[in-house]
Amino acid sequence: MKAEIIAVGSELLLGQITNTNAKFISSKLAGIGIDVYYQTVVGDNPARLDEVIDIARKRADILIFTGGLGPTKDDMTKETISKHIDTTLVSDKEALRYIQQYFERSGRVMTDNNKKQALVFKGATVLANRKGMAPGMAVEHEGVRYILLPGPPHEMEPMFRDEVIPYLLGATGNKDVITSRVLKFYGIGEAELEFRIQSILEKQTNPTIAPLATADAVTLRLTAKGRSADEALQLITPVEAEIRAVVGEFIFGIDDETLSSKAAKLLIQNGWTIAAAESLTAGLFMAELANEPGIGSSLAGGMVVYNEQMKIAQLDIDHTLLDEFGIVSEECAAALAVNIQRKFGTDIGVGLTGAAGPSPHDGEPVGTVWIGICFKEEEPVTYKLLLSGSRNANRLRAARFALYYLIQQLDEK
Amino acid sequence: MKAEIIAVGSELLLGQITNTNAKFISSKLAGIGIDVYYQTVVGDNPARLDEVIDIARKRADILIFTGGLGPTKDDMTKETISKHIDTTLVSDKEALRYIQQYFERSGRVMTDNNKKQALVFKGATVLANRKGMAPGMAVEHEGVRYILLPGPPHEMEPMFRDEVIPYLLGATGNKDVITSRVLKFYGIGEAELEFRIQSILEKQTNPTIAPLATADAVTLRLTAKGRSADEALQLITPVEAEIRAVVGEFIFGIDDETLSSKAAKLLIQNGWTIAAAESLTAGLFMAELANEPGIGSSLAGGMVVYNEQMKIAQLDIDHTLLDEFGIVSEECAAALAVNIQRKFGTDIGVGLTGAAGPSPHDGEPVGTVWIGICFKEEEPVTYKLLLSGSRNANRLRAARFALYYLIQQLDEK
Repeated sequence: MKAEIIAVGSELLLGQITNTNAKFISSKLAGIGIDVYYQTVVGDNPARLDEVIDIARKRADILIFTGGLGPTKDDMTKETISKHIDTTLVSDKEALRYIQQYFERSGRVMTDNNKKQALVFKGATVLANRKGMAPGMAVEHEGVRYILLPGPPHEMEPMFRDEVIPYLLGATGNKDVITSRVLKFYGIGEAELEFRIQSILEKQTNPTIAPLATADAVTLRLTAKGRSADEALQLITPVEAEIRAVVGEFIFGIDDETLSSKAAKLLIQNGWTIAAAESLTAGLFMAELANEPGIGSSLAGGMVVYNEQMKIAQLDIDHTLLDEFGIVSEECAAALAVNIQRKFGTDIGVGLTGAAGPSPHDGEPVGTVWIGICFKEEEPVTYKLLLSGSRNANRLRAARFALYYLIQQLDEK
Repeated sequence: MKAEIIAVGSELLLGQITNTNAKFISSKLAGIGIDVYYQTVVGDNPARLDEVIDIARKRADILIFTGGLGPTKDDMTKETISKHIDTTLVSDKEALRYIQQYFERSGRVMTDNNKKQALVFKGATVLANRKGMAPGMAVEHEGVRYILLPGPPHEMEPMFRDEVIPYLLGATGNKDVITSRVLKFYGIGEAELEFRIQSILEKQTNPTIAPLATADAVTLRLTAKGRSADEALQLITPVEAEIRAVVGEFIFGIDDETLSSKAAKLLIQNGWTIAAAESLTAGLFMAELANEPGIGSSLAGGMVVYNEQMKIAQLDIDHTLLDEFGIVSEECAAALAVNIQRKFGTDIGVGLTGAAGPSPHDGEPVGTVWIGICFKEEEPVTYKLLLSGSRNANRLRAARFALYYLIQQLDEK
C-alpha cells in the first residue's frame, strides 16, 4: 500500500506555518508498514487541488488530506473532492450535535457557516474529532481511499491515532500486531544517548529502536512485530533491559508519561504535599505540576519571588546570605526550598533561582541555575545547571530539570 | 513568476524530520512577490524525482530543490536533474578548493566521494555555501529556472538570503515591494471574526486579507503590493481602520506582538508593578509575563494558592466569603487580586480562580473561570469565562485571557 499526503492551505504556501502534519502522518504510516512516496502542499484553490488529486490517485492507493475542513469560505477540500469522486455531501447528525454543544458550552453564538463543518461524504466512515469541531472522513472510490483530516495538529494527531490507524489496519488486512514501548529520557542529549547504546542500536531489527528528540524529552521507541501483542512485547523486554543497564539513570518514565505526570503520580500515591518558591521560572514549575488532574491533594502552592526585595520580604531569605553568596547560588536555592516548605507546612519544598538571560544576573553568567529540594526533616539537596539556550528555553528547562530531580529524589524514598 | 519547492529526501517521507525548508523559502519568496503554488516532497529515488520534475516544469517558472547534494550515494539530485535538462556536470574549482580547505582545517582525511560535492552544471551560477561543503547552483533551461540548494537548514537559509534572493530579483526584474501588517486578536474565534468583517474581506484585493488561527491568537495578515514600501503601507492603512471600526475591541497587538509582550511593554513603559494570586493556573500567568526580558522591574511576584486552606492561611481570604460565594466566584477572584496587591505592595493585583477540569470544582462546572484585576486604589474589575477545552487548554486560556483583560485595562489608563 502506498500513501500520498496532501496538505491544503495557502498559509503553508505563504510560509506562515510549517507542515508538521506531514511529518507526523509519515512517521505513523511508517510504523504500520505503509510507504509514503510523495508529500504535496497546495493552496486553497479548487482547480489546483483538483489537478493534484488527479496526479496523486494515479500513483498512490491512499490519499490523506489535511486542512480545509473548517467553516470559512477558504475551506474547500470537501467540496472539491466530492466533485472529483462524484459523491454528495450530507449533514452528519452526530457531528452537528457535537458542534452545537460546543457553542452552547462556550456560551458563543453559532453562526450558519459553522453548520458546514458537519457535512460529510454520503456513505463515508466518519472520524470523530474530540479536540475540535470538524469531523474527518474516509471513503473508497475506484480502488483509492480518500481520507480527510482537519489541519490543526492538536485536532489531527489524536484523530489519526484513534481513528485513522485502526481504519487503515482494517483496510490493509495486515494480521501482524505491532507493539511499541517508549522509553523517556531527561538530562541526556540525543547524540550522546545514541553514541552510548550504539552497539545495541546496530544489531536490532525486531524490535526496531527509533531515537527521537522532542521539546520535552529524548525518547527511544522500541517497536516489535509479532503474531500477538504478547509475542511482540516479549521481543521488547530483553532489549529494554539491555538499554536500562547502560543508560537507565536518565530514564524517568515510559510511553505517555511526562516529567509532570510521573512526579504527580509519585506525590499523589505517597500522599506527600509540596510547595515551591520560584525566581527565574516565575511559576513554571508549579504550573507544570498542575497539568496533572488530582494534583490538588499534593500541591499546596507556593510563591514567585522575582526580585531580591521580595525574596527577603515575603520568604524571609536572610539578606546577609544574599550579600555573601548572591541570588544565583546554592545557598539561596536551599533557603528558598526550606523556607517555602516551612511557610506552607508541606512535606517537600522546591526552590529555583538562576540567570535566565538575556543578561547575566547578580554576577552569574546566563544559563546558571540552582535548584534546591528538601524532603521532610532531611538536609536540602541542591543541583547546578549550566544551560545554553534562549531565555525562555532556559526557564522551561530549569522547571523540567527540577521535576526530573524531584522524581529521582522521590523514587529513592 | 510562479515557483514550486521540491524537497528531496527519504528521511522526510519516513517522518524523521520536518520540512522546515519549505516554510522558510515560501515566506522569503512571498516577501519578494513570487507566488508559490505547490510544495512537493519526494524520496531519494531518481525515477520518482524525474516524474516530479516533469510535472513541476509545466506548472511553474522556478523550481527550487532542497537536499540531495551531499557526498553519499543516496544524494542524486544533481545527477537526475542534469539528465532531465540534458547538461553535464563539471568540477567547480572554487568549490573544490573550499572543500579541500574544509578538511584541512578539521584535520580529517578527504575521501573521494567528497569531490562529488564540487560538481556543478556546466554554465550554472554557482551559489556559495558558507556553512557547509556542497555549493548550490542555478541554471535556466527552456524558460524554467532550476535552483538547487543543500538540505540542512543552517546551510540552506544563509545561502537563500545571500545568494538566491539577489539572483531571483535579477531574474524577475520585479520592482514591486510587498509589505504586510498582521493584526492580532484575542477573545474572538476565527469563524466569528471572518463573519463580522465579511463585507470588508470580499471587496479586498490589494491589500489581501488572510485570516489565520494559531495556538495563541487569531490573526489577520494584510499584504499590499506597491512601487515602494510607503505606497504599500498607504494601501494598508485605510483597510486596517475599517477593520478596527468593526472588531477593534478584540485587537491586542500587531505584527510580532504577543499577549505577554504587549502586557509587559505597557507595564514597563509606565513603571507599574504587578503581583498575581493564582489558583487554577498555578503560576502560568506569572510565567507568561516573565517570558519578557526586562520584566523584573515590574513583576514583583505573587502566590500560587492551590487549595482552600492555603487561600485562607497564606492570603487571608475570608473563610466566610468562601463559605458564602464559593472558591470559584467573582468575590474570591476580587479578593485574591486585592490581597496579593496589598501583600506585595504593587500597583496592580491579579487574581485567578476557576474549575479547570476534569471534574467540577466547588460546585461550579468545568470551564468556569473568574479573573479579578485591581489597579492602585480603584475598585477591582472582574471577568467571567466559560471555557470548553481540556483541563490544560482551559488553564492556558485562563492565563491568556487575564493578560488580554490586563492589556485592555492598562490601555485605558
